[in-house]
Amino acid sequence: MKEFESTPIRYLNGKLEILDQRLLPHEETWIESRFPADMARYIQRLSVRGAPVIGIAAALALALYIEKGASQADIEKADQLLRNSRPTAVNLMYCLDRVAQADQLVEEEVRRCQQMAKHGAELIGEGEGILTHCNTGALVTTGIGTALGVIAEAHRQGKGVHVYVDETRPLLQGARLTAWELERLAIPYTLICDNMAAQVMREGRVQRVLVGADRIARNGDFANKIGTYSLAVLAHHHGIPFHPVAPLSTVDPNCPTGADIPIEIRRHEEVRMTWSPQNAPTYNPAFDVTPVQLVTSLILDTGIHREEAQLCGV
Amino acid sequence: MKEFESTPIRYLNGKLEILDQRLLPHEETWIESRFPADMARYIQRLSVRGAPVIGIAAALALALYIEKGASQADIEKADQLLRNSRPTAVNLMYCLDRVAQADQLVEEEVRRCQQMAKHGAELIGEGEGILTHCNTGALVTTGIGTALGVIAEAHRQGKGVHVYVDETRPLLQGARLTAWELERLAIPYTLICDNMAAQVMREGRVQRVLVGADRIARNGDFANKIGTYSLAVLAHHHGIPFHPVAPLSTVDPNCPTGADIPIEIRRHEEVRMTWSPQNAPTYNPAFDVTPVQLVTSLILDTGIHREEAQLCGV
Repeated sequence: MKEFESTPIRYLNGKLEILDQRLLPHEETWIESRFPADMARYIQRLSVRGAPVIGIAAALALALYIEKGASQADIEKADQLLRNSRPTAVNLMYCLDRVAQADQLVEEEVRRCQQMAKHGAELIGEGEGILTHCNTGALVTTGIGTALGVIAEAHRQGKGVHVYVDETRPLLQGARLTAWELERLAIPYTLICDNMAAQVMREGRVQRVLVGADRIARNGDFANKIGTYSLAVLAHHHGIPFHPVAPLSTVDPNCPTGADIPIEIRRHEEVRMTWSPQNAPTYNPAFDVTPVQLVTSLILDTGIHREEAQLCGV
Repeated sequence: MKEFESTPIRYLNGKLEILDQRLLPHEETWIESRFPADMARYIQRLSVRGAPVIGIAAALALALYIEKGASQADIEKADQLLRNSRPTAVNLMYCLDRVAQADQLVEEEVRRCQQMAKHGAELIGEGEGILTHCNTGALVTTGIGTALGVIAEAHRQGKGVHVYVDETRPLLQGARLTAWELERLAIPYTLICDNMAAQVMREGRVQRVLVGADRIARNGDFANKIGTYSLAVLAHHHGIPFHPVAPLSTVDPNCPTGADIPIEIRRHEEVRMTWSPQNAPTYNPAFDVTPVQLVTSLILDTGIHREEAQLCGV
């Protein structure tokens, strides 16, 4: 396997390591994945997260295991373990299917991010307020990111964008990770609670919504972090363009519509945190599905897709 | 002043005390208000909160100060201090205008809650899922509450309701206070993050949205806890009835529309909490305004109001 370094993952001196995103923004700690089971655990507990990079992380962990001479039976077991670590992310399956080309996946991802950023930035007007959700930047890819990559490119082109960052409960990827990335990039931003997005739209502060995607169905429906569907409805109500940004590998040709995407339900503790009654019953879907009718256009590495028909053909 | 006891406030043995809601649900601590400045601070820092009760709390603090023989100049200063403690709540002004009848305010509030509950419960169908936001129960009144009072009454009538509780960032009144009240009342509930409301609606779990109101304009627009407007848009999109519940004293005859309601912007720290970069810029409007077009009907102690004209006449 070739050595490389990126924001969330690196392979140097025979060590595959990930930046533990649970500890950001207060601590930057790298942890080693020696075996596929380590990486499956890191994915599950969100030490490494974001649809594009978990696929690569899983493929690298498996490739390294193969390189170390694991038995066929052990390889198959590890492959299954990794596939089950985040059931909603189709990219994970795509990358594990291509484990023999793990090196290539890393480089392809960098190029794909550049392509998404290029296409997406063309849509952005001067001085736009852009609302984003969860974290979709350099932390989720080996490149510059998906939705946040588009924003970074628009900023680099001097468009004077201002980013509204949804904190993204329950795991606060916006407050913790997107805010951290935007500070490193010196892009002006304002952090808000998720329930303020509607008010911020109503006040005319937002001209566009850019989000990531974990899985895109053939008809253009897509799954993404919980809260995305809410933003899509709110953007629609306020007449604000709404775009998911993702690599083409996020499109699942085996998935006809959003109704066919499994939604991961996570633990009560993530919602309760320290403040609610100890055994408060919760509902904690980690993702939701946004119907294509609420999507203005999809920004893919292959271009901007407005029509269902176009997406089916890709 | 007459002695009385309620969930959030009591006057016993010459001591005016409030239940410190900042410490709920983990601790139940009563703190004394010896001077109006104490109460103004308690209101400001949300130790006592909820539009109906802060008016009564302020009036009681001022009445006690008058009873103790404060000078006219000191009374006027205290009155002004209390009026400025929560600018969005018109009820505060209404109660301070009636400080000579502070005892009566406490008793009227109990009756008003019963009336709202009676009118509201008539709308609720068997087995409804009801989504609510913030906290509107016994903690915000000297009676059984506003929106949560309606829910409690429907439960008492055996309608088999299930409550979806928005945690209500940034101050988590839903997760901390509404969950605590529902457990005490043994009403089945599910706690969700604010950004899950849309998904919960889409899954068909919610048949009605009931919220409180801090100030209602003459045309029926109303201000309430941030996130209420978002729910109104989402309910509208999903065809789900949406009702604010409030005493008539919440209607401000001097306020023609929602555009005339001042919105309190609160501190960065409430949004940042412990997890975001230390100096992350935030936007923290404590309230938002919902236009009457998104309101199915208003539930007041005087009855159900569907028409703008009716509200103007009250």
